[in-house]
Amino acid sequence: MKLILLSGGSGKRLWPLSNDSRSKQFLPLLEDSNLSLQSMVQRVYQQLDKVGLSDSTVVATAKSQVDMIQNQLGIHVPLVIEPSRRDTFPAIALSASYLLSELDVAIEETVVVLPVDPYVADSYFNKVKELEKILAETNADIALMGVTPTYPSEKYGYIVPVSEETSSVRHVSRFQEKPDENQAKKLIDEGALWNCGVFAFKLGYLIDLIESKGIPSDYGQLIQRYEELPKISFDYEVVEKATNVVVTPYDGEWRDLGTWNTLTEVMGQATVGKAIVSHDCENSHVINELDIPVAVLGLSDIVVASSPDGILVTSKEASPRVKELIDFDQRPMFEERRWGWYRVLDHTHFDAGYEVLTKRICVKAGKNLSYQYHHKRSEVWTVISGEGEFVLDGKLIPVSAGTVLHIPVGAKHGIRAIADLEFIEVQTGTELVEEDIVRLGMSWDETLGYVM
Amino acid sequence: MKLILLSGGSGKRLWPLSNDSRSKQFLPLLEDSNLSLQSMVQRVYQQLDKVGLSDSTVVATAKSQVDMIQNQLGIHVPLVIEPSRRDTFPAIALSASYLLSELDVAIEETVVVLPVDPYVADSYFNKVKELEKILAETNADIALMGVTPTYPSEKYGYIVPVSEETSSVRHVSRFQEKPDENQAKKLIDEGALWNCGVFAFKLGYLIDLIESKGIPSDYGQLIQRYEELPKISFDYEVVEKATNVVVTPYDGEWRDLGTWNTLTEVMGQATVGKAIVSHDCENSHVINELDIPVAVLGLSDIVVASSPDGILVTSKEASPRVKELIDFDQRPMFEERRWGWYRVLDHTHFDAGYEVLTKRICVKAGKNLSYQYHHKRSEVWTVISGEGEFVLDGKLIPVSAGTVLHIPVGAKHGIRAIADLEFIEVQTGTELVEEDIVRLGMSWDETLGYVM
Repeated sequence: MKLILLSGGSGKRLWPLSNDSRSKQFLPLLEDSNLSLQSMVQRVYQQLDKVGLSDSTVVATAKSQVDMIQNQLGIHVPLVIEPSRRDTFPAIALSASYLLSELDVAIEETVVVLPVDPYVADSYFNKVKELEKILAETNADIALMGVTPTYPSEKYGYIVPVSEETSSVRHVSRFQEKPDENQAKKLIDEGALWNCGVFAFKLGYLIDLIESKGIPSDYGQLIQRYEELPKISFDYEVVEKATNVVVTPYDGEWRDLGTWNTLTEVMGQATVGKAIVSHDCENSHVINELDIPVAVLGLSDIVVASSPDGILVTSKEASPRVKELIDFDQRPMFEERRWGWYRVLDHTHFDAGYEVLTKRICVKAGKNLSYQYHHKRSEVWTVISGEGEFVLDGKLIPVSAGTVLHIPVGAKHGIRAIADLEFIEVQTGTELVEEDIVRLGMSWDETLGYVM
Repeated sequence: MKLILLSGGSGKRLWPLSNDSRSKQFLPLLEDSNLSLQSMVQRVYQQLDKVGLSDSTVVATAKSQVDMIQNQLGIHVPLVIEPSRRDTFPAIALSASYLLSELDVAIEETVVVLPVDPYVADSYFNKVKELEKILAETNADIALMGVTPTYPSEKYGYIVPVSEETSSVRHVSRFQEKPDENQAKKLIDEGALWNCGVFAFKLGYLIDLIESKGIPSDYGQLIQRYEELPKISFDYEVVEKATNVVVTPYDGEWRDLGTWNTLTEVMGQATVGKAIVSHDCENSHVINELDIPVAVLGLSDIVVASSPDGILVTSKEASPRVKELIDFDQRPMFEERRWGWYRVLDHTHFDAGYEVLTKRICVKAGKNLSYQYHHKRSEVWTVISGEGEFVLDGKLIPVSAGTVLHIPVGAKHGIRAIADLEFIEVQTGTELVEEDIVRLGMSWDETLGYVM
């Protein structure tokens, strides 16, 4: 049995903590059994580990999430990196080809696809394990897991079983997307289940299907032709067209933590970060990632969320509407990377396109920034803590707290931390964007190859 | 006629915009007739100007407010600078001695004392002008202005006239501080007025009185002995002990803008700074002094105020309680000074007392920082815009965007802006506080005297 964890989404409904480089599944807001904070991804991966499935798991994701996943799950989790974002059918097809041609998985093997971000009880993963047996026993093309509805929701898709069936495995008659409340009530009466995006099939079934569409099943070829794949969901392209589909119900806890009101329901503590909340505030939450304090006075049922990207103050009820309110065009102000993190302290636009961007940067011990240069900016780095080595135009320089480094436009430079290294970077120039970077070498060995 | 404007207070109830260096009267949140923003001080001074009284005005204030007052009112307003904060009697006594011995004001001259921060109609200042005539006609020792109450407030002091009098000038029978609501109703029935802190007297009256207490009436002597003066209000020490006091009612608008709910009532616009407020928010205000956006969703009757010191989210009703909630011990994160301003971008504490403080600093064209050195920190300045000249240990260096300046511990340094000069300062050391500064010269001429 192999698992494909789909790590997608941008999570704009959790602004300002989520942004293009930091989807909701990476926010460290859930409490683990030791009362430490963990993200949705970390929680799900820990649950997979408990049932012995983590070693059978690959994660399908975008390039922009690779650093986050490796920071949160470690560097040994196999990743299927989508060359671009094209919905779930292409992502799952690519992952299937990866299992086949990179991991040599047999075509008889059961594959289960599941999203990376549901908030569920451990029993959910026991149910996932059962899918292999269900697939074998029913000889179905696809076996689904469906959540037993707790209310007639208008926001989920419903899986409708053949009406007479009430056993623990039912044949699927049809699918219904986002019904209105009355329709939802009728569907629940018919025994319909919420579609939670868990699909099981034999690897060979999907490989045959993609080959029948003229799509290569070889991973190397498929990744080359990825841009040709249709932007369509696996539900539409595969599941809803299949004729022999079964579903098994899951009765335990299942929550979609996509909005501030749902997320704060499962938070172990009312505040994260520097926060002061007056005693008369009831059911209010503060999530503060800034260095300055947030004080809340006399307000109940609200969420205050702040990060270097902005500050949200919302009633819990209105919080799903945040996506409509925000202009998401601004640059990220905080990013975690494989080498550490940076935070934008100040970004000022002067006349004639001249800009100044001040960052605080941390490179973790043993990590390095790539050997690189920039076309449109010079940089001054003031090292404020730690120890490391720096290469400027082929010259190696030891650095520690107090060292000041001048990097003119076009000068090649790289840095490696020996002990956790922090510096303040002042960029000056025009078009100060992350993309103005020419990388000459990623590893420190490559960088040292340039030293004269 | 001479006016003493009392500029006191720290305004903790308007946190996080007000702090020790920025009292509420300096917050630029009121709209003037051109729809520009002005502070309470600027509004009152403009109103004094309209009735021809601004040239007769001195401002009594603390050293910490001098830069703010000069930035907001200009450098030509005469200032009486209290050596320390000792309540209103010492401040008014010092101001009276200043009028007598520094400005040579005659002892027959009428002096009116008024607070710098009431939000009032222009007619208030016409009433202030009448006090001179009232004092002459009644031959009273002190003439007061009292506000006609609009409700039985428990938070003001009441001036109770002799009961039979209903004329526009009444003799005062007694004073009553903060009554309960029932007492307040009875006081209003007796014709009592709110004490708004406006006192008129002949200069000679107060000079005689302070001399009778053994306090010198010479400004130079009084300032030397200021610390010996009792910490007591002018009301208690002078007005309530006087036997011949009259009061005249003022019927116009008068508001005490000391809390967020009262201040936002008179704000011309619902938001200041980067803010997004959803359409269903009613009577909510955002005052955002940060560079990042504040979004408010689905919340009515609230105030969100943010500055580099912190973020306040409060119901309007609860807003007067902010003072109880906040620990005011933190350092100011933004300050306006006579030479420009600075803002703290980052302040990090490492192990063993080692700290790093990153600031963005602006020195206005023609202004300079004093020639100075520090005991416990080194600094790196990266100039990001403008032009100026810098002196380091007696050596003169021209600077412009891109110049990087290293200032070791103990190195003497000063800078002058030719065009508005901005730089990023990275301080590293221990005990990074504003007070670690030894000033060798304030003016640029003095600084140039050190150039070898």
